[in-house]
Amino acid sequence: MRVAFQGEPGAYSEAAALEHFGGGTETVPRESFEAVFAAVEAREVECGLVPVENSLAGSIHRNYDLLLRHSLSIVGEQYLRVRHCLIAQPGATLAEIRRVLSHPQALAQCEGYLRSLGDIESAPAYDTAGAVKMLRDLGDRAGAAIASRRAAEVYGMQILAEGIEDDPSNFTRFLAIAREAVSPAGESKTSIVFTLQNAPGALFKALSVFALREIDLTKIESRPLVGKPWEYLFYIDCAGSTKDAMMTRALDHLSEYALTLRVLGSYARQRLDSPS
Amino acid sequence: MRVAFQGEPGAYSEAAALEHFGGGTETVPRESFEAVFAAVEAREVECGLVPVENSLAGSIHRNYDLLLRHSLSIVGEQYLRVRHCLIAQPGATLAEIRRVLSHPQALAQCEGYLRSLGDIESAPAYDTAGAVKMLRDLGDRAGAAIASRRAAEVYGMQILAEGIEDDPSNFTRFLAIAREAVSPAGESKTSIVFTLQNAPGALFKALSVFALREIDLTKIESRPLVGKPWEYLFYIDCAGSTKDAMMTRALDHLSEYALTLRVLGSYARQRLDSPS
Repeated sequence: MRVAFQGEPGAYSEAAALEHFGGGTETVPRESFEAVFAAVEAREVECGLVPVENSLAGSIHRNYDLLLRHSLSIVGEQYLRVRHCLIAQPGATLAEIRRVLSHPQALAQCEGYLRSLGDIESAPAYDTAGAVKMLRDLGDRAGAAIASRRAAEVYGMQILAEGIEDDPSNFTRFLAIAREAVSPAGESKTSIVFTLQNAPGALFKALSVFALREIDLTKIESRPLVGKPWEYLFYIDCAGSTKDAMMTRALDHLSEYALTLRVLGSYARQRLDSPS
Repeated sequence: MRVAFQGEPGAYSEAAALEHFGGGTETVPRESFEAVFAAVEAREVECGLVPVENSLAGSIHRNYDLLLRHSLSIVGEQYLRVRHCLIAQPGATLAEIRRVLSHPQALAQCEGYLRSLGDIESAPAYDTAGAVKMLRDLGDRAGAAIASRRAAEVYGMQILAEGIEDDPSNFTRFLAIAREAVSPAGESKTSIVFTLQNAPGALFKALSVFALREIDLTKIESRPLVGKPWEYLFYIDCAGSTKDAMMTRALDHLSEYALTLRVLGSYARQRLDSPS
């Protein structure tokens, strides 16, 4: 099984892919999210795994846009707890570290920890795993990078500290995408995107199709459509699969109100109370 | 009037503050969003302006968290069209540029344009305005930065190209925060945050308090509460002000269903169909 992800080997996306598809998976790095979608479409890989939501940073609209633009299906979800490590050369000690390199978002998420180290200079990098790779290539003993445990392993570097993020409730939700939709057995989720005329009560009517059938919603998000001030785009995740008759009826009912409706896929549900 | 914003002089947040409060405003840079909230709380400034939503990147949960943690009120909103410029030394020409420096997100948003320039190396920076400042200090004629028109003006640099973002529907929504709530005249909006027990139909009931009174919603977003798998947090913006009797009744009604409810403020509404 080949799975594409965005970033360098050792990226959090790669860790999520291995968690989701299992250790024997062949992970295939791609430069951009767009390239991940393109690789799935062109059959270079069987699946792709892309982040769509971080508990601190919010939804990643870009990947929802790409889902809309490509005719692929969501076939799974994976929550990954983001556990940042301080990574340095083998043999280096914490006392030697003078510089810390990482993606600006990772540096911001470890601000408190970095302050506690005293006089440390921090420098921005494109991505977390790339910072570890750069550090290894430089061989700089006074430098450290913030990245995943996996990044340290991939580049043969040393972990000086683990779990250094200021807010421990930092997790990212990833979606697995493939060319063919799946029919999940057991507890499942369905993701849809639809647009509504902007009128009082329009969303209430739309949600009634789920509430009247006691279908639970697990995510809802509105997004104004730029250039179309009277239309709104909504993302909804709901409990259940499109192979359930109740869900099919709810979606038929919704299409009576929605200007456009697209089912992105049904897939096995991972409970957020047990993120890995 | 003193208004705090996050970033270096010339940041998009500063441009939004000047747009919102007028050209005579004294803008006060702060290192972090937290420091913006703290400056308002400590009366160092009258207001703060923080981004809460970008049309491509999504909601900035961090600032919603800070709104919840501090007892400040939302007193205004400002949409800013993000129009990236390619900025270089005075006198430099596009043909001379070999390196482009900016925040990774800005570099990603101009990927297509940068590719069209041919063999250009791009390098990450902490923030867009900071990249322009660094470039000026280095005096590097082969280097350019991606930032706002205002950043070029602040640091006396030259704009080689404007509007270089790949997706023109790139805008950011900012909220103005202050110690005291305001009572807006004319068309207004109210922002609230509430939590619900996770049960089928809970959100439908909550939205009924607005739909039954024909109060229009302009934004809705759910957010799972980490560590509390049975509770959801919702952000809602709705049309109207808390000084309207209908709104007061709707919020009273909502408090019957909500586990917690906080009104973040009522403020004058800016129409998204005419973002500045």
